[in-house]
Amino acid sequence: MAILFRNVYLLDGTMERAVRADLLVEGERIKKIAAPGSLSGEKCEVIDGKGETLLLPGFFNAHCHAAMTLLRGLGEERPLMEWLEQKIWPLEEHLTDEVVYAGAVQAMCEMATCGVTGFTDMYYHMDQVARAVNELGMRCSVSVGVVRDPARFKQTLYRDFAEMRGPRIINSIDPHAPYTVPFEFVSECAAEAKRKNLPLQTHFLEAEWERGYLSDTLKMTPVEYLEKTGLAAVPRLVLAHGVQFREDELDYLAAHDNITVAHCPASNLKLGSGVAPVPAMLEKGVHVALGTDGAASNNRLDLWDEMRLASLIHKGVGRDPLAVSSRQLIDCATYQGARAFGYERVGRLAEGWAADLTAVDLTALHYLGADEENMSSYVVYAGGSGDVKHVLCGGGWIVRDRAFVPRPEREIRAASSAQRAWLLAAKS
Amino acid sequence: MAILFRNVYLLDGTMERAVRADLLVEGERIKKIAAPGSLSGEKCEVIDGKGETLLLPGFFNAHCHAAMTLLRGLGEERPLMEWLEQKIWPLEEHLTDEVVYAGAVQAMCEMATCGVTGFTDMYYHMDQVARAVNELGMRCSVSVGVVRDPARFKQTLYRDFAEMRGPRIINSIDPHAPYTVPFEFVSECAAEAKRKNLPLQTHFLEAEWERGYLSDTLKMTPVEYLEKTGLAAVPRLVLAHGVQFREDELDYLAAHDNITVAHCPASNLKLGSGVAPVPAMLEKGVHVALGTDGAASNNRLDLWDEMRLASLIHKGVGRDPLAVSSRQLIDCATYQGARAFGYERVGRLAEGWAADLTAVDLTALHYLGADEENMSSYVVYAGGSGDVKHVLCGGGWIVRDRAFVPRPEREIRAASSAQRAWLLAAKS
Repeated sequence: MAILFRNVYLLDGTMERAVRADLLVEGERIKKIAAPGSLSGEKCEVIDGKGETLLLPGFFNAHCHAAMTLLRGLGEERPLMEWLEQKIWPLEEHLTDEVVYAGAVQAMCEMATCGVTGFTDMYYHMDQVARAVNELGMRCSVSVGVVRDPARFKQTLYRDFAEMRGPRIINSIDPHAPYTVPFEFVSECAAEAKRKNLPLQTHFLEAEWERGYLSDTLKMTPVEYLEKTGLAAVPRLVLAHGVQFREDELDYLAAHDNITVAHCPASNLKLGSGVAPVPAMLEKGVHVALGTDGAASNNRLDLWDEMRLASLIHKGVGRDPLAVSSRQLIDCATYQGARAFGYERVGRLAEGWAADLTAVDLTALHYLGADEENMSSYVVYAGGSGDVKHVLCGGGWIVRDRAFVPRPEREIRAASSAQRAWLLAAKS
Repeated sequence: MAILFRNVYLLDGTMERAVRADLLVEGERIKKIAAPGSLSGEKCEVIDGKGETLLLPGFFNAHCHAAMTLLRGLGEERPLMEWLEQKIWPLEEHLTDEVVYAGAVQAMCEMATCGVTGFTDMYYHMDQVARAVNELGMRCSVSVGVVRDPARFKQTLYRDFAEMRGPRIINSIDPHAPYTVPFEFVSECAAEAKRKNLPLQTHFLEAEWERGYLSDTLKMTPVEYLEKTGLAAVPRLVLAHGVQFREDELDYLAAHDNITVAHCPASNLKLGSGVAPVPAMLEKGVHVALGTDGAASNNRLDLWDEMRLASLIHKGVGRDPLAVSSRQLIDCATYQGARAFGYERVGRLAEGWAADLTAVDLTALHYLGADEENMSSYVVYAGGSGDVKHVLCGGGWIVRDRAFVPRPEREIRAASSAQRAWLLAAKS
């Protein structure tokens, strides 16, 4: 059945100002956009926006480890390696299909109610993530890859991708990072990504010491690494974090339309990694998308929050109140993430594009004064995920009147509680 | 009537871990805290926390210009002086009693629903703020002072404080800043604050150029300014922002138990002012409270958000994941603000202390796994103001089941809309 959003504001990352319109969804796509009040609601489900509703494209979370929702809050405020070695890695030894499935479902519910329609996931037991994605109806780039274990990695890389497929799934090949995956395997991944025309995602230059690792151990600069591994030549390359890029390396990134940096401001701050040079990236034309990272290092999966954080931190640290506009951030949080992984016609509000939509309730007091001209600044500076009322992914409801549609939240909570308890017991 | 919160978690800025308890409110104060399930609910209104509710002390917003809610979103993403000169100051020329009253009421509703029970306000037509505070039942330090106009300032300073009084109001004397108020007037304010035993709040070292102003125009260092004006000797001095303090000046602040820095991370970032040296302040024992600043430069009045922002930014910019603990931030967001302005026994959960309480719903998925040990990190890193369910100020309901109790939100919205429209028309 078609869905008509009547009398709403529309705003995406290409629009200088919001527009008032009717928007008709048919099947998976936006069928028509027309003047407010002009489209007939016959044979449609009609959602009356009353001029107090904003449609944004669904947010796309460009870097996430979804099932880490079950590891949230374990060992906070410790140095990174102590945290990994004493808390996270010992638990990850015990991950099962059931744990990853429950954690991924929880993550999807948390993300969707914050306006996210698509995400990328890089973790273990990824067939279980694909299962959850297919059941719940969101969009996900599901990774093929493992961490800290070349043998398992090689096995996974060449096994059939069949069990990780679905109508809204894109498979990506994800070598974890230069310092955990041997150079030769990364090169193999790059070759495979090229052969199969798949996106490739890897952690890159997150912490300060990584540059030293590249130069001391591999005897390469970051750019040389991207060149010699063949990463720079894959169809779509997503570099997660990219905190430590230097100004002179940004021109190289900007010259590669196939490369996107997945910026994760909260995680980078919380772990003390620093602040990525995002204003310079945007100025030079580097593609920048936004991600949350996993719930063990963020601890929210709220991409709206990342958008606000990115807007504030780059202005403050660069001492430039004009750095990174609200319009740019809406683009980074929506279209740029979908584009980075190869989703076509996803992330904008235009006829023929995917009906991935986040409907925002503008009746909260903090929107008082919002209009066509200033809507993007209200969204980024004053708004928040608490304002998300409805969410559609590919024309299907995933959030309606603030509730997650595909599965009752109490079921999700019960399953996650049980799996977390099991995991903590398994470790001890 | 007494109110019994049964079977809840308690957490304040002094507690190493959360505790499970019953908490009885009688009149304006916390009468009794006892083991969960142990207090009788006879002759009480009973709120059953079901082990899924957290009580925090009400947040105290230590720096705000409340009525600027009506100026939100005007002239975003412009250089500071262009913004002030072209957008803000011309409008402020037209402020009336009605505008300030409506804007203050809106701010109070926004703050309360985010868990704020007390705030400080420094703006125009402050008798109208006092009126709103008395009507709505929150706690407020109402300023006596004006900006950019010594004549009006002097007149206000010496007029009767009577119309700004109320049971939960503290009057403070607020010379705007060293660069807007002549040295002699600031000294007079300091003398008056001493004489009347009042707190004094001023903007101090917010932007980079202010240090240069002090040395070039007044021929003083910041510490000399505090000494020579007499500010350092007032009973309670609140320095708003304090971004540009240098390490060697922090020992001076730490040696003064009467001085508090009101840290406003979002505003400082958004205006490109930089990042205050808060980790060093806390380490040296400087009192630090948290503030939002006005809605024209934040644009939220969400102190929970400031708490999270402060936790992240100081870790990231200082490259230290252990900087500024979640427990410290809860203290800064609650007790330290109330203490700074002279509220006694406000901001902690203990018998005999004020019943300023924020009840947090822990059933959201992002609290899954929260327990006594890790509650403070869940609050700061994973939680948010959307989790606030009930709020009491001095034993009186100001938020109940997420709704503002003292006045219907639709009335507040209507009044604010009308006043904003009037103000924008008055300017043009």
